[in-house]
Amino acid sequence: MPVAGADVAVRRAGRLAELLRRMRLVIVGGVAAGTKAAARARRVNPGLEIVLFQDEAEVSYTGCGQPYYLGGVIAGRDPLIIRRPAEFAAAGITVRTQHRVTELDLEERTVRVHDRVRDRHETLGYDRLILATGARPLIPQMPGIEADGVVSLRSIAELDRFDSALQRLRPGSAVIVGGGYVGLEVAEALRRRGLAVTLLERMERLLPRFDPELSARLQRVLRDAGVELRLGEHLAGLAAEGGRVRAVWTESGLRLPADLVVLALGIRPNVSLATAAGIRLGASGAIAVNPAQETSAAGVYAAGDCAESHHRIAGVPVWNPLGDIANLQGRVAGENAAGGHAEFPGVLGTAIFKAFDCKVGVTGLAEGAARVAGYRPITAVIETRDKARYYPGGRPVWLKLIAAAGDGRLLGAECFGSGAVDKLTDIIATALLGGLSCRDLEHADFAYAPPFSPVLSPVILAAQRLCQNLP
Amino acid sequence: MPVAGADVAVRRAGRLAELLRRMRLVIVGGVAAGTKAAARARRVNPGLEIVLFQDEAEVSYTGCGQPYYLGGVIAGRDPLIIRRPAEFAAAGITVRTQHRVTELDLEERTVRVHDRVRDRHETLGYDRLILATGARPLIPQMPGIEADGVVSLRSIAELDRFDSALQRLRPGSAVIVGGGYVGLEVAEALRRRGLAVTLLERMERLLPRFDPELSARLQRVLRDAGVELRLGEHLAGLAAEGGRVRAVWTESGLRLPADLVVLALGIRPNVSLATAAGIRLGASGAIAVNPAQETSAAGVYAAGDCAESHHRIAGVPVWNPLGDIANLQGRVAGENAAGGHAEFPGVLGTAIFKAFDCKVGVTGLAEGAARVAGYRPITAVIETRDKARYYPGGRPVWLKLIAAAGDGRLLGAECFGSGAVDKLTDIIATALLGGLSCRDLEHADFAYAPPFSPVLSPVILAAQRLCQNLP
Repeated sequence: MPVAGADVAVRRAGRLAELLRRMRLVIVGGVAAGTKAAARARRVNPGLEIVLFQDEAEVSYTGCGQPYYLGGVIAGRDPLIIRRPAEFAAAGITVRTQHRVTELDLEERTVRVHDRVRDRHETLGYDRLILATGARPLIPQMPGIEADGVVSLRSIAELDRFDSALQRLRPGSAVIVGGGYVGLEVAEALRRRGLAVTLLERMERLLPRFDPELSARLQRVLRDAGVELRLGEHLAGLAAEGGRVRAVWTESGLRLPADLVVLALGIRPNVSLATAAGIRLGASGAIAVNPAQETSAAGVYAAGDCAESHHRIAGVPVWNPLGDIANLQGRVAGENAAGGHAEFPGVLGTAIFKAFDCKVGVTGLAEGAARVAGYRPITAVIETRDKARYYPGGRPVWLKLIAAAGDGRLLGAECFGSGAVDKLTDIIATALLGGLSCRDLEHADFAYAPPFSPVLSPVILAAQRLCQNLP
Repeated sequence: MPVAGADVAVRRAGRLAELLRRMRLVIVGGVAAGTKAAARARRVNPGLEIVLFQDEAEVSYTGCGQPYYLGGVIAGRDPLIIRRPAEFAAAGITVRTQHRVTELDLEERTVRVHDRVRDRHETLGYDRLILATGARPLIPQMPGIEADGVVSLRSIAELDRFDSALQRLRPGSAVIVGGGYVGLEVAEALRRRGLAVTLLERMERLLPRFDPELSARLQRVLRDAGVELRLGEHLAGLAAEGGRVRAVWTESGLRLPADLVVLALGIRPNVSLATAAGIRLGASGAIAVNPAQETSAAGVYAAGDCAESHHRIAGVPVWNPLGDIANLQGRVAGENAAGGHAEFPGVLGTAIFKAFDCKVGVTGLAEGAARVAGYRPITAVIETRDKARYYPGGRPVWLKLIAAAGDGRLLGAECFGSGAVDKLTDIIATALLGGLSCRDLEHADFAYAPPFSPVLSPVILAAQRLCQNLP
């Protein structure tokens, strides 16, 4: 009996595998999540037909690298394109660029596709579908928004428009609207090019979700680098002359002359296709998914910037549109869509960026977010250097650890400085993965030698300080 | 009744606290563990009498920084001294330098002390004692070992002797005996000073406990930097002329001319005082301690390079003489000796060093050590760069992850390269603290931006590869 049962199971598995081999996987979107999903699906299931539609002319490009190209840190635009359609073709993945998927029929399991070059429409059936439609910048609808010199940053097309504005208009001054990561990275890029830069931020301080000390230092770094900060100012209007932008107005009546206006007001998930088809969105406005990256529709997955994530510390769904998460989610969606089994366990909200010589890293919950999530947080701040004091080249780091008052379990960290912010952030991210408390870290055995760390890591010092506040 | 009981408990605690306040803590040794223990004891118990005896003229100096001073990376000898006796005096800690504790009477609870400057002996009672006697370099007893130009590195006195040899003898060539961390760091220091350097290592490869690829690369780095490597060669003898060293011989009959001979054959725990008193040593030859850093003798603690540690992954006692561990253990010993409660949970065997542009980091168990500890290890090697490929300044890193075959639980890592070896090592050390498996890391949310990391950390890539080998 067990043998016969096993035999039946093997035969069933064989039929399923055969079925999966003849299936067609359609992927909508080809930047990080879409291309990763395609590659993973191909690896898991060599017989699967895979067709990827990409609205834009390029696939598999980096968004995160674009400010560094604009600032001249990365020479040339080519390195921003990670893989070409031909490379996917060689792996048996059909990539159709400049094809926009305009409609999704969940009943019929078809997509309607617009070939934007030939201006032709076609309908294609799918067995499995992955939505990797990404996000788009928030562009306020106001007069002048189409003027020459008003730019944004996201797609390669937007990058080219930005680049072209820099080349053609030779702007002497720029106003950046929005003090998020992109706005700050662009501020550095434009200062590197010698522009006079004004940064407009609607909140009273930069990165208002984090510690005021972090905001204050970052603001100082920006001002020292010659960026004029205008905090608590909302964009109210744009002034153009002869089709070319000349200035912005703020709601308080400020008029700021600008040869270039960079809109960096944030991004929104690109969910129109999903919404029109009746796929459920989460509270964040992005597509709701389970740990297998499955949407509310059978056979339809979502991954990357269009999808929600589970926040592992807050315990709630969040929208966390970052390149590494898109990669990881794309891999899970591709694996599952191809017949494998994978689960994405969620995010920690880890992020890092730099503006000039100031690096800012965060993971888990900031103090305020911890309160919102129902924790009673305790915190410890350590300000030190990232090498032994007597070793040359050490740079300052500021680390704030946040833990639960009862058991000292870590909830998050904020870190900034010109030193090893990435390292400290990743140590805490790993500690969060392990559910560690400050007690677990106060005697941690980290890699110490004078060129690499003070004798006790700032993480240990902060953990020791937290332990003193435990009952 | 409960109230009265609580009252009695409070009164008892009060008497105990009073008793502790009138106690005398004697600490033997004042480098890392001893001074940290003193500082912690003072903080925990402001009324405690604390007397620290230090054999040498200096307290609270760094051993780890010494090669960098010799190489000219650290300017001057002063920065190597972290704290002066006066600073301890200000905190109410009596520090007696050039005082050697020659005898320990566990029955009488006394130490016999030799004041080396006044050549006077005295006996002092203790209530609590902390042994922080450190380690000393292994010096082979052979003719010529006392010759001018034969040096070692550990204490400030040895450093001064080394330094003086460099100044006075102006050596053109050096033979370094021993290819451990210190030998390699000194090799870099002496090459920086323009000496012709030969490194003698008795094993057939450097760092034989680790992956052969790691040894091969390190050997290439050293040879490229002009270090002549002599592997599989044992020191057999020294040739001196007019009291000055001229050459070394190896057991294979090789004669290597040398104006300077650096003995870097390793160190041994300094346990003579403990042994003579009848305090139990562990299998490693260092003083056996429990997690409270208590030795086999009542009221006597040990910490730092003279004490054993529990290896958290191997589950056995090990001798792990490193500066950060000495600090952590000293803190625990000081806390407990002063009436507090702390436990040192053990070590992971984390270590890091650099030789020229090659950094080597290890944590947990290497593949061979994992087998010895009874695990069936699986491994994955990732070779990549430490930033996004298109971002300038990325440097290579090689990472080997070692996990248990059954459940994928991480056992250790080896890492090297000119890139962010310290960061990757510390991430894995934290993962080991959390008992994480490769499944926990394959979807980890680390800090990604192009200047800091590839889109997927080498840790994630290695974990993903390990997961493919799990049942």
